[in-house]
Amino acid sequence: MTSYIAPRKDMQFLLQEVLQAPRSDIPGYGDLDEGFTAAVLDEAGKVAEEVLAPLNALGDSEGCVLENGVVRTPKGFDAAFRAMKEGGWTALDCDPEYGGQGLPYLMQSAVGEIFVSANMAFNMYQGLTHGAYSAIHTHGTDALKAKYLPKMVSCDWTGTMNLTEPHCGTDLGLLRTKAEPQEDGSYLITGQKIFISAGDHDLAENIIHLVLAKAPGGGEGTKGISLFLVPKILVNEDGTLGAPNNVSVGKIEEKMGIHGNATCVMNYDGSKGWLLGELHKGMRAMFTMMNEARLGVGLQGYAVAEAAYQNAVIYARDRLQGRAVTGVENPSGPADPLIVHPDIRRMLMDQKSFIEGARALTFWGASLIDRVHRLGDQEADGLIGLLTPVIKGFQTDKGFESAVQAQQIFGGHGYIEEQGMSQFARDARIAMIYEGANGVQALDLVGRKLAADGGKHVMAFFELVKAECKAHDGDERMKPFTEALKAGSKQLQAAAMYFMQNGMKNPNAALAGSTDFLHLTGHVCLGLMWTKMAKAAYAALDAGAGDQAFYETKIATGRYYMARQMPACAMHLARIESGADPVMALAAEAF
Amino acid sequence: MTSYIAPRKDMQFLLQEVLQAPRSDIPGYGDLDEGFTAAVLDEAGKVAEEVLAPLNALGDSEGCVLENGVVRTPKGFDAAFRAMKEGGWTALDCDPEYGGQGLPYLMQSAVGEIFVSANMAFNMYQGLTHGAYSAIHTHGTDALKAKYLPKMVSCDWTGTMNLTEPHCGTDLGLLRTKAEPQEDGSYLITGQKIFISAGDHDLAENIIHLVLAKAPGGGEGTKGISLFLVPKILVNEDGTLGAPNNVSVGKIEEKMGIHGNATCVMNYDGSKGWLLGELHKGMRAMFTMMNEARLGVGLQGYAVAEAAYQNAVIYARDRLQGRAVTGVENPSGPADPLIVHPDIRRMLMDQKSFIEGARALTFWGASLIDRVHRLGDQEADGLIGLLTPVIKGFQTDKGFESAVQAQQIFGGHGYIEEQGMSQFARDARIAMIYEGANGVQALDLVGRKLAADGGKHVMAFFELVKAECKAHDGDERMKPFTEALKAGSKQLQAAAMYFMQNGMKNPNAALAGSTDFLHLTGHVCLGLMWTKMAKAAYAALDAGAGDQAFYETKIATGRYYMARQMPACAMHLARIESGADPVMALAAEAF
Repeated sequence: MTSYIAPRKDMQFLLQEVLQAPRSDIPGYGDLDEGFTAAVLDEAGKVAEEVLAPLNALGDSEGCVLENGVVRTPKGFDAAFRAMKEGGWTALDCDPEYGGQGLPYLMQSAVGEIFVSANMAFNMYQGLTHGAYSAIHTHGTDALKAKYLPKMVSCDWTGTMNLTEPHCGTDLGLLRTKAEPQEDGSYLITGQKIFISAGDHDLAENIIHLVLAKAPGGGEGTKGISLFLVPKILVNEDGTLGAPNNVSVGKIEEKMGIHGNATCVMNYDGSKGWLLGELHKGMRAMFTMMNEARLGVGLQGYAVAEAAYQNAVIYARDRLQGRAVTGVENPSGPADPLIVHPDIRRMLMDQKSFIEGARALTFWGASLIDRVHRLGDQEADGLIGLLTPVIKGFQTDKGFESAVQAQQIFGGHGYIEEQGMSQFARDARIAMIYEGANGVQALDLVGRKLAADGGKHVMAFFELVKAECKAHDGDERMKPFTEALKAGSKQLQAAAMYFMQNGMKNPNAALAGSTDFLHLTGHVCLGLMWTKMAKAAYAALDAGAGDQAFYETKIATGRYYMARQMPACAMHLARIESGADPVMALAAEAF
Repeated sequence: MTSYIAPRKDMQFLLQEVLQAPRSDIPGYGDLDEGFTAAVLDEAGKVAEEVLAPLNALGDSEGCVLENGVVRTPKGFDAAFRAMKEGGWTALDCDPEYGGQGLPYLMQSAVGEIFVSANMAFNMYQGLTHGAYSAIHTHGTDALKAKYLPKMVSCDWTGTMNLTEPHCGTDLGLLRTKAEPQEDGSYLITGQKIFISAGDHDLAENIIHLVLAKAPGGGEGTKGISLFLVPKILVNEDGTLGAPNNVSVGKIEEKMGIHGNATCVMNYDGSKGWLLGELHKGMRAMFTMMNEARLGVGLQGYAVAEAAYQNAVIYARDRLQGRAVTGVENPSGPADPLIVHPDIRRMLMDQKSFIEGARALTFWGASLIDRVHRLGDQEADGLIGLLTPVIKGFQTDKGFESAVQAQQIFGGHGYIEEQGMSQFARDARIAMIYEGANGVQALDLVGRKLAADGGKHVMAFFELVKAECKAHDGDERMKPFTEALKAGSKQLQAAAMYFMQNGMKNPNAALAGSTDFLHLTGHVCLGLMWTKMAKAAYAALDAGAGDQAFYETKIATGRYYMARQMPACAMHLARIESGADPVMALAAEAF
């Protein structure tokens, strides 16, 4: 049985000391003083620790069941969902006009991490609702917003995203679901969607499906796609529930993990739907959901790893096996705890330094989103656009690796379902796949984001890194950070240069290195984050701030990342510079 | 539903052209002419393709069940097991004196790979029997051998290894199972063992357990351990089965994968056992099983990856999604197949170049074992001792990564159990854990094998690499191979040097880099294998040998490995040279 404690102190360190939220010029950040954020994190932590985490293993073993067309979630999920609603946790950063609390997205991310760590599958029910809320909020008419958003903010009704069909996932231009316009301005939606997370369940009175479909006259490919709001149950003018809307569940998929979330085949059979955003411009509206979802998935990557890590630490401290090579450390026991062994340390440090770096990157990313939404900052918009595929792809690849490493520390016990470590690995695996498989993220980064607006955003990123390094010129203590960061940044620039020089005449020369570029960028981002964290930790130590051991641990963890993870940058660059030939040499038949 | 075709041609290339088995001086290799090995591989392939592979998914979904103290294996396993026995596949390299066919271990490995790829969980029933056979064959008295081996060679009786107890796995010195000597020279064994693969099942009349236990007078720790043969059912003097031997199954573990194999808690309650090897020297006898088992697990690493890869190739060719960035390749279809995309290629090439390199290393390792057993070659013994943890650790880490990559190519479909790709990843996961978790392999490599016999074996390995590179001096075509191999070898030597210079005064300086050293060695080994394979392929092309495309594919696959995988060597060296400080900086409480 696994356990989880919300990392309140690490989060506070980021919010108050690294990002210094209350001193930010972003509207609303002034309220995020130390006492307030501490209270929010503490309350969220209690819900996660006491209500969500105890249901995590049960959700995995019991799973969701389809009986007579109705999906039943695991025991206890309904009560927990009620607790989430009653605590107002579903409405944190939503628009106060529709019942939300209007907090910054930064706080939504911090609280979101806590809930995902405690129970990823459970949290998806409200997570997807939030994505659907955002799409409706951005693209819906006032009438649609008034009718649907209050109930979605409270999670009385939940939401879904319906993109994938059996024959197409990434390539949405191939989709076949049809939308026929009706006289009253609505559409009738017909088609089959698969892999719909939270597609049906017993936690809410109604489910608001956002469905991509083709309406007549839109032409071929993705250009002809529109986004529709399709409720499971029709909503009357007075807001009460009306007749069922011909939406049915074909089956629940048997998956590798996230068993607590119902992944459904959804059938729409002339279901009534309403257009969201412009006709035939559904891809744009859909990306409102997708970008938010991608950041959310990047968060899942390290949030699951955090839960796995916490349990690995407990096991490594408790399990007595072997003796320290440098001399017995537990003379009164039959053996020393696992944590004395250097290779166990290596694995724990890998996890710890990744997770804390990824948390910093995610929180910083969330603050960029707030900057966009609350200040209309175009530079922040470009930067977060560039970083979104990195946060999604890098953090989920590494998050899975991290969960697998945590499992490894348990030895044979890690492979037994009873211990719960297998679940973390199996749950973390999906994050590399959904909301755009990580190869698609790499393609987005190299094929679109890198050259967007004349390469302006990546240049801005390099300037940021340069300025950060420059700020510590002459500070000997910061050298292990700035030197590794400079080296990584230089390698990243060389990689971008290679793409510029070779990608024009042979696009494969860039795309063959896309995943390596994504990981190289990820390491430089985490190197930047560790530099910022080290700076904040030294500042606290210099000021004689309270918990000296906490700040020293931060610095040591960061030094580990710089010494042991940043060397991956050179490997990625070497791979990139080997070009397309090794990758594309074989004919398709030769595999 | 997955499929599998035995890679006959790739195996023949290794046996006949790279290892040139028939021309070897190892007794028995003269018989391994092209026609003979082709026939063996083809027959094994048919059994694997037609009998074992179709049961793989079913074994996973159905699993093993404990009912009224009896373990039931999945439907169809019994018929398949009979087919294996009747085909003589359980006796391939066993001693003809006990009914074996006396073939080299090399052939056992080739055939073993085929069976593991087709159905890993199923093959473990005979795989563990083989390990137990080897231990009895090496350490048993003539009487024990005559009584047990013929039935084990035929797999009428199967075997197990009983090491782990609830409180100890790696640290066997802690074990509590007791052996009380009896007047008749036998022992009564009492204790509980866990994680016993194939611990009980309905495929054989009897199960011969090899059990580590402590007999009186042996002292503390591993020194007091002895190895005992404990049959599930006692065997009468005339070879017929007698009374049950107080061996019972406590439960079957619910695991992440290999569901088709029953992993049991075994209870011994005064069960009669017979000493194998010397009293209080059971660890040595146990290592006979373990070393063979570790090579077998290293084989599982890439064998499961091979099956996953084959299915990923099929999917990448069939699934239409997106268009090639360099121009439409499938104009008559709605989209191009996945395989046109560079990042899909990268993943397939990663898998292909790893798997073929690992197969070469495994076959070469098997030939070293034959050299030891059939020629008493001490140098070969030292070399395979050095390479065993590398084959086990590196190949299972990479094999899992490879299976995960194959799963990734399926996108969302890879996460659905129905497709079978999740099973490959879940099955492959155990190989990183059992027979000594990979961290223990790294410890064995750096802590024991590297310095064994004054470092003689690692020096011999470096000489081998040097000679291989030198043999191609002046051959321009071989440069991409020899240059990358030289660079990797130099980095490996630098790492070994770092350990020598720092490990004496601080053992943690070596152990903190042990896993990186294991991976660095693995890459150099595969670089060496690819150099040998490229040489053989060029020789065949120069000689105008038949299938030109086959040899060109080999060379291109090797070039991929050298260009895109060997750069990992520098990263591992950089991590190693960062020393113990980053790894050991934190106090245990600081995690």
